[in-house]
Amino acid sequence: MAEPMFAVDIAPDRSDIDAAIAKLCDSLPPLPSRLAEAIRYTLRGPGKRLRGMLVTTSYRAAGGGGDVSGLAAAVEMLHAYSLAHDDLPCMDDDEMRRGRATTHKACGVPATVVAGVAIIPLAARAAADAVGGMHRGAPRVAPIVATLMQAAGASGMIGGQLQDLIAENTPADSLEKLERIHRAKTGALMAASCKVGGMAADAPDTSVQALGSFGADLGLAFQIVDDVLDVTSSSAELGKTAGRDAELGKSTYPALLGVDGAMDRAIALARQGCRTLNEHNLLSQELRHLADLVITRTH
Amino acid sequence: MAEPMFAVDIAPDRSDIDAAIAKLCDSLPPLPSRLAEAIRYTLRGPGKRLRGMLVTTSYRAAGGGGDVSGLAAAVEMLHAYSLAHDDLPCMDDDEMRRGRATTHKACGVPATVVAGVAIIPLAARAAADAVGGMHRGAPRVAPIVATLMQAAGASGMIGGQLQDLIAENTPADSLEKLERIHRAKTGALMAASCKVGGMAADAPDTSVQALGSFGADLGLAFQIVDDVLDVTSSSAELGKTAGRDAELGKSTYPALLGVDGAMDRAIALARQGCRTLNEHNLLSQELRHLADLVITRTH
Repeated sequence: MAEPMFAVDIAPDRSDIDAAIAKLCDSLPPLPSRLAEAIRYTLRGPGKRLRGMLVTTSYRAAGGGGDVSGLAAAVEMLHAYSLAHDDLPCMDDDEMRRGRATTHKACGVPATVVAGVAIIPLAARAAADAVGGMHRGAPRVAPIVATLMQAAGASGMIGGQLQDLIAENTPADSLEKLERIHRAKTGALMAASCKVGGMAADAPDTSVQALGSFGADLGLAFQIVDDVLDVTSSSAELGKTAGRDAELGKSTYPALLGVDGAMDRAIALARQGCRTLNEHNLLSQELRHLADLVITRTH
Repeated sequence: MAEPMFAVDIAPDRSDIDAAIAKLCDSLPPLPSRLAEAIRYTLRGPGKRLRGMLVTTSYRAAGGGGDVSGLAAAVEMLHAYSLAHDDLPCMDDDEMRRGRATTHKACGVPATVVAGVAIIPLAARAAADAVGGMHRGAPRVAPIVATLMQAAGASGMIGGQLQDLIAENTPADSLEKLERIHRAKTGALMAASCKVGGMAADAPDTSVQALGSFGADLGLAFQIVDDVLDVTSSSAELGKTAGRDAELGKSTYPALLGVDGAMDRAIALARQGCRTLNEHNLLSQELRHLADLVITRTH
């Protein structure tokens, strides 16, 4: 993809999101210490904060002028929970993530199961607090929380996780099936990130849908690049175990299309997402920059 | 406890709740089939529906005249999820529950982990739909859903589960600590059941608090009786593995107070709960009957 015409600096968003996550970790309700530790360990893991930045940049693209770092943090909480559960021994059984031990290796399996579940209502509360505290935010709380919960739920992220797991050790067959899994597993939360950004800015429904469509396409592109990096990178570069997909016998895009074919598909999806935004006058430099990052990232 | 002065028939409530659960199972969103199966298996397990009946009877005691079986079903969904996760190999590792194989024995561990998590937003949605559909229910949706989620969350039910697990294989030491665990694990959701019943009836805050206090006391009484039954009953009578607490080296009330001492404590708690309700003119025959059932139940 072409470089953005102007330099775009979204690093401050990332710092704000990290600060919001740190604040949430410091103000957990009274909890058993092992549970609080596992929640904090899960939430504080370093990360790209891509989903959170999709919230903040979608919010601004839709005309929002306030601070939505709390809402972005809520999305990152849901993402962090999904990673912790995805790495469980009964799921993908991974020991390394984001350059450090996975939550279950550091805090034990039971605390990880419970912490993961506990994060969902904490994220719902964080989103409700963030939106409810905005100017005329109250009526937007319920639809925004519902959108996030649906994306995180059975028909979204965690449904995709289980489909992904079931697909292990079955031959990489149809691209259509793989796309359905990836769209649920990764696309649903990315689409929701963009949608709630627009909803928080009180954007019209057509804009919210366009942002959601962009996020869904970008989510699938992200997952395709993930598949590619799993083949082409080392564990040190990724901060997680490389070559894991092949080890688990998973269907992947490079297995079906080859590395180049997979990358072509990812680029086409990112372009398609940007085109949708452009048609709705929502393609900001920032959102285009995030689309670029998804394609050019190396970890 | 004394028998209620008049016969009370709450069996229709139970049928309504079962019907509401069945309807929810029939109208799940499109999901991977293994996930849908595990969700249905978990939700459809036979049960006393005590928590659901605390919702319906608290609602009526607070003056409600409509149908809250959908809200009661939402509470039962949260309870069912907690049982499925509690029985996981990484938690209490149980194979039998409610007279049948536990969810992870029937549907596998990964599907059980994911189904459990998936049930939380489904329950939130079911509660929101039930309350939102009531006459002037809309403003009550958010506080009712928040109350349920908090009870199910880290500082409530699942926090208690983890504390309970951590307490395994440590000597039964202080009654205070055990009470704190039991109140979180069982009391939080029972208190919330009573509270949301009152909230759905638009009861004043003092009444909601009194109902919550009754539910919390009854929840602790319930858990004490659970501990007693684990010692005194057979697996066939319980529908789950008897003697499991001792096997797991858990602190229990009978271990600390003896069977009679434990039952005395349970009865005192149920009386205390009823007294609180009576002081607020909320002690209906139905609620007194449920308090009796908690003490006299044999499984």
